[in-house]
Amino acid sequence: MSKHVVILGGGIGGLATAYNLRKMDKSLRITVVSGRPYFGFTPSYPHLALGWRKFEDITIPLGSLLPKHGIEYVPENGERIDPDANKLWTTSGKEIEYDYLVIATGPKLVFGAEGQEQNSTSVCAAEHSLELQKKLEEFYKNPGPVVVGAIPGVSCFGPAYEFAFMLHYELKRIGIRHKVPITFITSEPYVGHMGLGGVGPSRRVMEDLFAERSIKWIANVKITKVEPDKVIYEDLNGNTYEVPCKLSMLMPRFMGPEVVASAGDKVANPANKMVIVNRCFQNPTYKNIYGVGVVTAIPPVEQTPIPTGAPKTGMMIEQMAMAVAKNIISDIRNSTDRYAPELSAICIADMGRDAAFFYANPVIPPRAEVKFGKGVWAHYIKSAFEKYFMWKIKSGNIAPFFEEEGLKLLFGTKGVVLCSDCSETPCSPC
Amino acid sequence: MSKHVVILGGGIGGLATAYNLRKMDKSLRITVVSGRPYFGFTPSYPHLALGWRKFEDITIPLGSLLPKHGIEYVPENGERIDPDANKLWTTSGKEIEYDYLVIATGPKLVFGAEGQEQNSTSVCAAEHSLELQKKLEEFYKNPGPVVVGAIPGVSCFGPAYEFAFMLHYELKRIGIRHKVPITFITSEPYVGHMGLGGVGPSRRVMEDLFAERSIKWIANVKITKVEPDKVIYEDLNGNTYEVPCKLSMLMPRFMGPEVVASAGDKVANPANKMVIVNRCFQNPTYKNIYGVGVVTAIPPVEQTPIPTGAPKTGMMIEQMAMAVAKNIISDIRNSTDRYAPELSAICIADMGRDAAFFYANPVIPPRAEVKFGKGVWAHYIKSAFEKYFMWKIKSGNIAPFFEEEGLKLLFGTKGVVLCSDCSETPCSPC
Amino acid sequence: MSKHVVILGGGIGGLATAYNLRKMDKSLRITVVSGRPYFGFTPSYPHLALGWRKFEDITIPLGSLLPKHGIEYVPENGERIDPDANKLWTTSGKEIEYDYLVIATGPKLVFGAEGQEQNSTSVCAAEHSLELQKKLEEFYKNPGPVVVGAIPGVSCFGPAYEFAFMLHYELKRIGIRHKVPITFITSEPYVGHMGLGGVGPSRRVMEDLFAERSIKWIANVKITKVEPDKVIYEDLNGNTYEVPCKLSMLMPRFMGPEVVASAGDKVANPANKMVIVNRCFQNPTYKNIYGVGVVTAIPPVEQTPIPTGAPKTGMMIEQMAMAVAKNIISDIRNSTDRYAPELSAICIADMGRDAAFFYANPVIPPRAEVKFGKGVWAHYIKSAFEKYFMWKIKSGNIAPFFEEEGLKLLFGTKGVVLCSDCSETPCSPC
Repeated sequence: MSKHVVILGGGIGGLATAYNLRKMDKSLRITVVSGRPYFGFTPSYPHLALGWRKFEDITIPLGSLLPKHGIEYVPENGERIDPDANKLWTTSGKEIEYDYLVIATGPKLVFGAEGQEQNSTSVCAAEHSLELQKKLEEFYKNPGPVVVGAIPGVSCFGPAYEFAFMLHYELKRIGIRHKVPITFITSEPYVGHMGLGGVGPSRRVMEDLFAERSIKWIANVKITKVEPDKVIYEDLNGNTYEVPCKLSMLMPRFMGPEVVASAGDKVANPANKMVIVNRCFQNPTYKNIYGVGVVTAIPPVEQTPIPTGAPKTGMMIEQMAMAVAKNIISDIRNSTDRYAPELSAICIADMGRDAAFFYANPVIPPRAEVKFGKGVWAHYIKSAFEKYFMWKIKSGNIAPFFEEEGLKLLFGTKGVVLCSDCSETPCSPC
Repeated sequence: MSKHVVILGGGIGGLATAYNLRKMDKSLRITVVSGRPYFGFTPSYPHLALGWRKFEDITIPLGSLLPKHGIEYVPENGERIDPDANKLWTTSGKEIEYDYLVIATGPKLVFGAEGQEQNSTSVCAAEHSLELQKKLEEFYKNPGPVVVGAIPGVSCFGPAYEFAFMLHYELKRIGIRHKVPITFITSEPYVGHMGLGGVGPSRRVMEDLFAERSIKWIANVKITKVEPDKVIYEDLNGNTYEVPCKLSMLMPRFMGPEVVASAGDKVANPANKMVIVNRCFQNPTYKNIYGVGVVTAIPPVEQTPIPTGAPKTGMMIEQMAMAVAKNIISDIRNSTDRYAPELSAICIADMGRDAAFFYANPVIPPRAEVKFGKGVWAHYIKSAFEKYFMWKIKSGNIAPFFEEEGLKLLFGTKGVVLCSDCSETPCSPC
Repeated sequence: MSKHVVILGGGIGGLATAYNLRKMDKSLRITVVSGRPYFGFTPSYPHLALGWRKFEDITIPLGSLLPKHGIEYVPENGERIDPDANKLWTTSGKEIEYDYLVIATGPKLVFGAEGQEQNSTSVCAAEHSLELQKKLEEFYKNPGPVVVGAIPGVSCFGPAYEFAFMLHYELKRIGIRHKVPITFITSEPYVGHMGLGGVGPSRRVMEDLFAERSIKWIANVKITKVEPDKVIYEDLNGNTYEVPCKLSMLMPRFMGPEVVASAGDKVANPANKMVIVNRCFQNPTYKNIYGVGVVTAIPPVEQTPIPTGAPKTGMMIEQMAMAVAKNIISDIRNSTDRYAPELSAICIADMGRDAAFFYANPVIPPRAEVKFGKGVWAHYIKSAFEKYFMWKIKSGNIAPFFEEEGLKLLFGTKGVVLCSDCSETPCSPC
């Protein structure tokens, strides 16, 4: 009888895993479980907030999409996992049995600063971006200071930088930039750290990009409180400061959602409830459970004075999905080949008219290669990639031939590598 | 009967106001009161000190110039103003009645460090530059260490940078650069701050320009004393240090001259005796008194550990003069239109063979636009602008059509903007 | 009777002096005393360590070389000098009488950190580089973290930078860069200081080069101990830290060798046993003793929180050799002309595929001129210069016409300058 793979989550990680599996094994039974009824291209949520994209441009309803590709769809969130029984229950109580479980839920957002959820808005969910878009429309009529930043414990800093740059561009476009002091406040030890100890010249690059845009920055501090008209932060000596603002966009911390915790301490990392995985993104205890994407527990790159985490970018997530799909297929076919994601990354921070391009291989240091560029071309690559990715998701054509070959040709990256010993920490080189 | 506008001061601000008024209203009576018998192009005073310009190149006698343009000239300084009586007395006791008074005297120089006036020289007056030129001729025969810098409270840092760069160039040209250690000591929190919280990448740019020229810099300190052979400064912890020098050029602080104070506390800012003005550069109490140029009280851009002020550059002063002239004409014609200067600025720091170009719009943050460039072209633009400006002053042709249109085309600046409410602080956006 | 010049040392300084003297006076008796039986091109020792050069490529046996050029060779080290008797004894007890003595031994290496000599390797001697090459071959099979750096008191930092850059390049070439965290730990107050207070934009340049190569750096600290698997350092507050490593390359301090000390306190600087010289590189007490190269006592450029010294680069040493040869010839001919080296320098830090180029004139500040470049061309210039220099040494053609004229043309340097008063500190301008 054909095996049943259940995938929790319908985002980049979940869908990439599902499509990869379908491509490798036509007979496999694949089910995606996701209470969010649509796939969303998260990298464009900041663009949604600024009204540069419409909701329809960057989302696809899962209900019509998945069955077309022979994937079952359960439009509910997972509620509880029993890893010993190989079973999962949804919020409505529906019981689903699996042979393999892939946890790709994405993060639970934690608005850790007092008043952050009430008085600030994020760009980490389409709904938040739409809310921010409405706030911005009001703000444009009666502008004032803005704070953009990241609270302690954040692992995803990119969208904060991007939002600051893009807001600068938008304010200039509509002629009110000179009425809006923008302050960037971050828990990173320095700007451009990105939770990664910096990426090549990123520190100098970000400092310059801010300076050229007259954006003031404050690094190595903890945002402790957000009020309707100010953001309060604390330095390492415990002194507190206030920055007035009419609007703020602050990145939240990420944790694993409750459904991961329900699987017990062998699956959920006690510190952050994310999925414990080995180098091949397989759970070390329950060998038929895998993790993909932001919900996986990756160690921080280095200890920082104020805690920060390592980000998982879209390209890293695609590589995890590829490795996990290959590992499941190998297991089904009784092959001993196991794969680890290479975890290289291309990141493009959009700035409206131009963009900053980073390439790191691997993302987690020590790095063999780092490249950096800046220009109008990078802005167009980012826009083109969004269209291409939406087409990939619609057509189910994950990692088509020309993309894989293109990356191999341009950067010498392979996406996944054969791994003789999966037992080490995720991100360590095979 | 025709109204009488009296203008105190015959520099860039005074003459630009006079010429603008004359252009807008042929019948107006205009009087310029200035004890200094010539117009001087202040931005070229550092060049005068280095012998790169002659006094005649950059000055024009007012006595022959003004009557040619239908402007009366009183070759004396103002001594006392009675704003309630609309009267002004000159040093010789001459009484002048006015309908409108424009205060454009420029600053009183304050040599705030002990021994600064005796043992150091500035480039803030043509006479000082000529004195420095003589000192330099001696110095070249027997060279040694040089200190260039700015004492606490300075608002005009540009000429210090320019002088350091230009002196480096001159010393190299005559083959003695390797005998002259140059140290730059400033009250700015960092080099490139310029009293403006930095202008785009100015911090990095200035650090690099100094490094490439082997000029050592010390920022965020107070020069407290100048002796014939050393400069003494104090850091924020109160420790004092000495830097040996054979020659020093230190920027003084600026205050309003006594004649402003004589008009009382409603006209003279208690802190620095500069002219209190609103956003339209009109005195809030005496509506027929205006301020133009360095003598106006503008709030500092930000608090710095050691006090610094915001500079008023030539382009800002021209915009103030245009706004004030338009406001006086509007008032005479009973129009309610009032204008505020846009306060954008192009600054070029000459370095001998090349120059650094900054554009900021507006100068006071938050800024909509910042541009930076460096090259031989910028040096030639600066030299060409001097010639052009001297021609403007000689011909009385302030802001001719092609200059206004050129700036509008290149940078989208308008010079002055209609202001619905003049009552706010100067430099705040309308 | 013809005078006898004895030269202690057969490196760049010793041979350049010998060849210059031979060129200027065919009848002079010249003896080189050197226990090391070969000339080695020290700037390529890092390349030897990486296996990019063979020992034969960058060394020439002195025994066959010197007699060919009419120079006597004693294949032993000097053991004792009696400056009052104008005599020198070798390790075997051989007595040599001299009219002029040129001390050009190069440094004695001091491995000042505990365990440094046992657990770390340098690139300051061909033997060390060959040992390091063997260690690296083992390391490549089982890679891990690497530490590159410089202990307190170091005056020669360039090879540490070069080795870090070149190792990065080599590791990338063989595909294991991602398994090797590289940390650079230095006693310089900041990276790019180089014992010279920086050279133009060197601080920013080195920071950027490290960032682009994902090399982590720690400056302004003292390496106190080297263990087989870690390097221990101390910050200015006395806190200690450990950096794990499988391999380390740490620059030692330089001192004068015992033979210099044997000449007494008038010849050997008490602090570091290097040769005391005046501006013309002549000993102030014993006028017939000269110093050339790394063994001469030059004052540090500036006091640093952790002691560092000023480097003597190849080009500086060639200039010293030229000045000393001219001074000896002048003395023999009873001329009063004395010469000082100009001490300008071109330094090229090789990075494998490209290289960083610095030009400083003079090396010791204040500097008249600093140039910086980076590119593939600089890498080829460095390689070409090595070949050219080896040819110079083989042919005895020190400073041939086209080299001298080329440098004069390109940079306006003269190599040596007439000096009216030799009595000042070395490196002060004449």
